[in-house]
Amino acid sequence: MRISARNQLKGTVVAVEKGATTAHVRIDVGGTIVTASITNQAVDELGLAAGKEAYAVVKASDVMVAVD
Amino acid sequence: MRISARNQLKGTVVAVEKGATTAHVRIDVGGTIVTASITNQAVDELGLAAGKEAYAVVKASDVMVAVD
Amino acid sequence: MRISARNQLKGTVVAVEKGATTAHVRIDVGGTIVTASITNQAVDELGLAAGKEAYAVVKASDVMVAVD
Amino acid sequence: MRISARNQLKGTVVAVEKGATTAHVRIDVGGTIVTASITNQAVDELGLAAGKEAYAVVKASDVMVAVD
Amino acid sequence: MRISARNQLKGTVVAVEKGATTAHVRIDVGGTIVTASITNQAVDELGLAAGKEAYAVVKASDVMVAVD
Amino acid sequence: MRISARNQLKGTVVAVEKGATTAHVRIDVGGTIVTASITNQAVDELGLAAGKEAYAVVKASDVMVAVD
Repeated sequence: MRISARNQLKGTVVAVEKGATTAHVRIDVGGTIVTASITNQAVDELGLAAGKEAYAVVKASDVMVAVD
Repeated sequence: MRISARNQLKGTVVAVEKGATTAHVRIDVGGTIVTASITNQAVDELGLAAGKEAYAVVKASDVMVAVD
Repeated sequence: MRISARNQLKGTVVAVEKGATTAHVRIDVGGTIVTASITNQAVDELGLAAGKEAYAVVKASDVMVAVD
Repeated sequence: MRISARNQLKGTVVAVEKGATTAHVRIDVGGTIVTASITNQAVDELGLAAGKEAYAVVKASDVMVAVD
Repeated sequence: MRISARNQLKGTVVAVEKGATTAHVRIDVGGTIVTASITNQAVDELGLAAGKEAYAVVKASDVMVAVD
Repeated sequence: MRISARNQLKGTVVAVEKGATTAHVRIDVGGTIVTASITNQAVDELGLAAGKEAYAVVKASDVMVAVD
């Protein structure tokens, strides 16, 4: 499947923390950690665990820009 | 200002493309290009232009995870 | 690529309307029209046009519920 | 109340799963299941339960498009 | 229609600026201006114009928090 | 840090309710309560608690408009 989301950042899962229904997945993208909040169900379906290659996917309209 | 968004990815603006009301800003984050879709007005206020240091900011609940 | 988004609704593109930088794509999902607002660039890359099979993809945290 | 969201998909609630603060609500829209992640508080206020008619509401800018 | 979105802020439209496909609508909520980016089509359907009463509606998962 | 988000609504935290991984923070903005759903981790980092001054920050593309 190819998707319209402009940001598909390849990296490696470094941590998965499950909550009651929502999990936080941390992905190392070239040395930068990206955190995703997704359902526990998705974690299980994709077999996400530390060490697995994965993409952080973000729609361009969900990215803001900040300056110091 | 410090913000709750889990993802504040430091990089350098490489391109700004303005549309009628919405602009696309591309930021190089450690060699990965992140694209943000923001208002033209925000581009002007923050003085965004190629070469400027900036952060791509994304709320964790807006990040998905994909695997090959 | 498999993605964490809970909603991957299979259908057929019925219309693509491009703006300055943003396009509106309408997908018929089992008789219900779903409208996506994506970049013109994504429209081109995915070759979206009326008649093409496509999925409307939505993260669960972006779905609200309403009642009459 | 009428709302600007382009996608207001009429269906029937088929499941409600509450977590600590966040619930997952599944709505059958013409045979397609749509999953919403909303607050437990909203579930209670709207009286959401299996069998109830409801709409899955999604802003067009939160819909992505994918192709096989 | 009643909707699950936690934030339904009542106010008055003070400005509508249409772009190619996307419009920016400014709503005065108790003296604070809230800006919404919605489709031109939605502006027309809801008859939005300066002076009209309207609600700015935001899902709780789309709200961040910042401190000075 | 200055951010592109069009809506940065100044107010006072009135309640913080933590769940397993996600917290709900309520901010009084000029008499209107705005609810944010953010990570517990962000609550701790920003030191959010009732009585603290804070901003509710929302990207314009995440704001919908409704009319009665």
